[in-house]
Amino acid sequence: MAKERLIYLPLGGAGEIGMNAYVYGYGAPGKERLILVDLGVTFPDMDGSPGVDLIFPDIAWLRENRDRLEAIFITHAHEDHVGAIGHLWGDLGAPVHARAFTANIARRKMDERGHPDRTVRTASAWPETVKAGPFEVGFLPISHSIPESSALVIDTPVGRLLHTGDFKIDPTPIVGEAFDPEAFKAVAKDGVKALICDSTNVFSPQPGRSEASIGSEIEGLIARAPGMVVATTFASNVARVKTLAEAGVRAGRSICLLGRAMRRMIEASVETGVLKDFPSVIGPEDALSLPRENVMLIVTGSQGERRAASAQLANGKYNGITMKEGDMFLFSSKTIPGNERGVIRIMNQYSEMGVDVVDDDGGKYHVSGHANRPDLETMHDLVKPDMLIPMHGEHRHLREHARLGASKNIASMVVVNGMMMDLTGDQPVVAEHIETGRVYLDGTVQIGALDGIVRDRLRMALNGHVMVNVIIDEEGEPLGEPWVEVMGLAETGRSNAPLIDVLEEDLSQYIGRAGAKTLRDDDKLEEGIRRAVRQSSLDEIGKKPQVTVVISRLE
Amino acid sequence: MAKERLIYLPLGGAGEIGMNAYVYGYGAPGKERLILVDLGVTFPDMDGSPGVDLIFPDIAWLRENRDRLEAIFITHAHEDHVGAIGHLWGDLGAPVHARAFTANIARRKMDERGHPDRTVRTASAWPETVKAGPFEVGFLPISHSIPESSALVIDTPVGRLLHTGDFKIDPTPIVGEAFDPEAFKAVAKDGVKALICDSTNVFSPQPGRSEASIGSEIEGLIARAPGMVVATTFASNVARVKTLAEAGVRAGRSICLLGRAMRRMIEASVETGVLKDFPSVIGPEDALSLPRENVMLIVTGSQGERRAASAQLANGKYNGITMKEGDMFLFSSKTIPGNERGVIRIMNQYSEMGVDVVDDDGGKYHVSGHANRPDLETMHDLVKPDMLIPMHGEHRHLREHARLGASKNIASMVVVNGMMMDLTGDQPVVAEHIETGRVYLDGTVQIGALDGIVRDRLRMALNGHVMVNVIIDEEGEPLGEPWVEVMGLAETGRSNAPLIDVLEEDLSQYIGRAGAKTLRDDDKLEEGIRRAVRQSSLDEIGKKPQVTVVISRLE
Repeated sequence: MAKERLIYLPLGGAGEIGMNAYVYGYGAPGKERLILVDLGVTFPDMDGSPGVDLIFPDIAWLRENRDRLEAIFITHAHEDHVGAIGHLWGDLGAPVHARAFTANIARRKMDERGHPDRTVRTASAWPETVKAGPFEVGFLPISHSIPESSALVIDTPVGRLLHTGDFKIDPTPIVGEAFDPEAFKAVAKDGVKALICDSTNVFSPQPGRSEASIGSEIEGLIARAPGMVVATTFASNVARVKTLAEAGVRAGRSICLLGRAMRRMIEASVETGVLKDFPSVIGPEDALSLPRENVMLIVTGSQGERRAASAQLANGKYNGITMKEGDMFLFSSKTIPGNERGVIRIMNQYSEMGVDVVDDDGGKYHVSGHANRPDLETMHDLVKPDMLIPMHGEHRHLREHARLGASKNIASMVVVNGMMMDLTGDQPVVAEHIETGRVYLDGTVQIGALDGIVRDRLRMALNGHVMVNVIIDEEGEPLGEPWVEVMGLAETGRSNAPLIDVLEEDLSQYIGRAGAKTLRDDDKLEEGIRRAVRQSSLDEIGKKPQVTVVISRLE
Repeated sequence: MAKERLIYLPLGGAGEIGMNAYVYGYGAPGKERLILVDLGVTFPDMDGSPGVDLIFPDIAWLRENRDRLEAIFITHAHEDHVGAIGHLWGDLGAPVHARAFTANIARRKMDERGHPDRTVRTASAWPETVKAGPFEVGFLPISHSIPESSALVIDTPVGRLLHTGDFKIDPTPIVGEAFDPEAFKAVAKDGVKALICDSTNVFSPQPGRSEASIGSEIEGLIARAPGMVVATTFASNVARVKTLAEAGVRAGRSICLLGRAMRRMIEASVETGVLKDFPSVIGPEDALSLPRENVMLIVTGSQGERRAASAQLANGKYNGITMKEGDMFLFSSKTIPGNERGVIRIMNQYSEMGVDVVDDDGGKYHVSGHANRPDLETMHDLVKPDMLIPMHGEHRHLREHARLGASKNIASMVVVNGMMMDLTGDQPVVAEHIETGRVYLDGTVQIGALDGIVRDRLRMALNGHVMVNVIIDEEGEPLGEPWVEVMGLAETGRSNAPLIDVLEEDLSQYIGRAGAKTLRDDDKLEEGIRRAVRQSSLDEIGKKPQVTVVISRLE
């Protein structure tokens, strides 16, 4: 029998920020018993995935090997770690383990998709552990920008792994457990085989700042505001929401939470006991009846999302509330790259209303949830792993993090999605390459990112769409003229005649010239029509459109 | 006769960054003689204008009043100031005035569109002036990130205006004239009625830094690089290109310029004498024959543009040159908001190749070309205008700049595109609102932004497109079954049958139920089919597509 081995296989999150999904396995090659850490989503954009609702990692490999999957562990409740659990659990069927707050969120997602929520089991913190096949997994509390984030201590037959999940080093995180260096030292005392480590902020050279460091700045800002104050942050950043709410209360304001995610997160925090002393809140109707200077709204939409409360307030009204001159809107958040346009749109809409917009102001009103470069080094130094596998980063982050590790003589390696690594020895070794990719949730259907569906949409968006309709009669002769419809193209071009007329005329000529052989052959005729349309459009309007040809044969 | 008045009317650039176009006029209301300052473009994006090539300001008002237009003045050669001159000059027909370098670029644009390039007249710097109807206009040298930028001194019958154009306060700009505070004081000595002022960096609290301040950092960086060095910046930032090239030469490297815009700008700079001592350059073939450590490429594509040299090198090869492990790529530039995704894509591609990517590193290798807040104050203080009209900014920039002016007791007002202001008195007064907007260059055709064409493209991109083909025979009865084609939609949905089959089946049923009256009425039938398709798609795949219906009637 082949020697047993320890494997690591990222299916998502390694080579991108988003849709985290990391597989660990132990056993004879091809028969390893598996666990999955996290099952997240990433979000679509117009540039690459227009119309798509959510993006999942392609877990085809894991689905094929589901009989080997012992359990799923969720490190924390951010969408890029738990967001796909409801959508993809049916393909996997293994029990899901998470700490109370994360489990609460995961259960809601299972409920929504009709899965039994008892599948989600609430785990206690380290030193308690969960047995899963050859693994024993403990949830070691770690600070991040959401309650109850955990690093996973994964004990395997060949040694201990530490999977950090997302983290920062925060001694005063406001909500949840402080980062405890002693706990990490203790866990690492007898050696850690591999540290699988967050890489998000490896390019940030300064030590990270604590959540507690911005409280007084926020308090001062809100105290000085003359009108209504509206603040936005990630709803899941419960500590920030608390800081904002308390600053509001101290400034004599009643707090109103707007946006489904905001209310849901605070609800989950209270239900699970992670949030104990949140100020009492009022509903939007009550907010309307109070003087503006006594109201503070905390709302969703820090990334400029079109349907969130921040965007709707910017458009005019949300839950009956309108903003006006003298009010203040605070982005207690950072704009994630790619979301700038949406955020700037909202800022300008508020500016037009006379609302003062305040952004994070170089960090005065926001701190990151991820470990900066010196903090990553602190983690390396605490854990002293034999190997370092950077994760949760684009390629550039992973590469920089691996270099940082190598500079301290830790065996470090850039491992991206689909690389199955053998971690049994002293060095990470590539065992196999697995087909990975992205799956789109499109409406209610999952489609492959490379199925060509979204590519066709992008082409229609860039080039417009021409539809041609030709009727061929029983004798194989064209019946009447070809019929053209266009969508997304200029109505007239170079010749000043309607584009449709020009195309129909050119097509008539083409069909007139086409021989009986072409007219009998759907493929040939279609291809000929397509070429004629593209050439004719190019001459007329300078664009080569997508073309759909419908040939109807009367028989 | 009505009293004569001085008007200001931004048609582009006020309420956005891009497509600058500012009208000034003097005379009896409705009969003012006009001048236009700048005629620029802005760039499309997938979120709002997919497939569009360029965006122009809508100059319909100016076209209708072209008989009143005396002249066009171009402050500098950035695309957002001169980019539309070739495309729109035919609508206006007035002489174009610019200083030598700008005129050189403008002439190339006129040439490309077949306009007589003698229309572009080279102006000398202030104190020489150009007479244009009631105006006398002087080009006052001002520092910016392109050679020969000018503020315009606009003398009118009711006083002097100062239109800054884009500027920074740079005593050592490397190429071109240093900012000369004495010149501005002298111009303002007898009073300036209104300062129309760049607002881009009003939110940057620190004083701006000189172009010269980054030379030694860049030099050190390049000197330390072991392999080939590739640097990108805006091609028009001739001073930066020179700094980069000289740093390369000092490090023992031969310089190769890649990308059409890069070569064109350096050519124009040499032709017009603004660049006197640029190092000699080699072609790509020569670069290939040298050791990597003796080569430096300076390339286009600092904003991640897909077709530029930087992106093509990241994709593998450009002009026969490939990058490899140990090379360095320097972004001596800032990413303009909205372009992050493209830039990050390239960074990761280089990371995969093993190329070290260096960005501006918090300003070490890049400085902005615009005046920061304290520099704007310096300008206010030098010019001491009666009125301040912020321009060249989104609404939030204009508003902040107007507040800054007001805080110093300057009559300041936010004026956005389409607001015609009467500047005759002591305060700016709204005279009229003019219809403005955007015009898209789409292929070779100009289309209105609100024509619905791009909206249809966006809808197809978000929702996919279904085409239905129905044949009605001579008796008004459906001939055969309806025929459905789809583009950009999932092939199967809820029922696991092909979507096309489901839609055809549902449509057959709908048409079977439709009465003779509906079948005779194209509009009614089309609307019914559209609804049936959208409902059926929603049930099946959770999306409501765009629908095009073709009804062919045999007669």
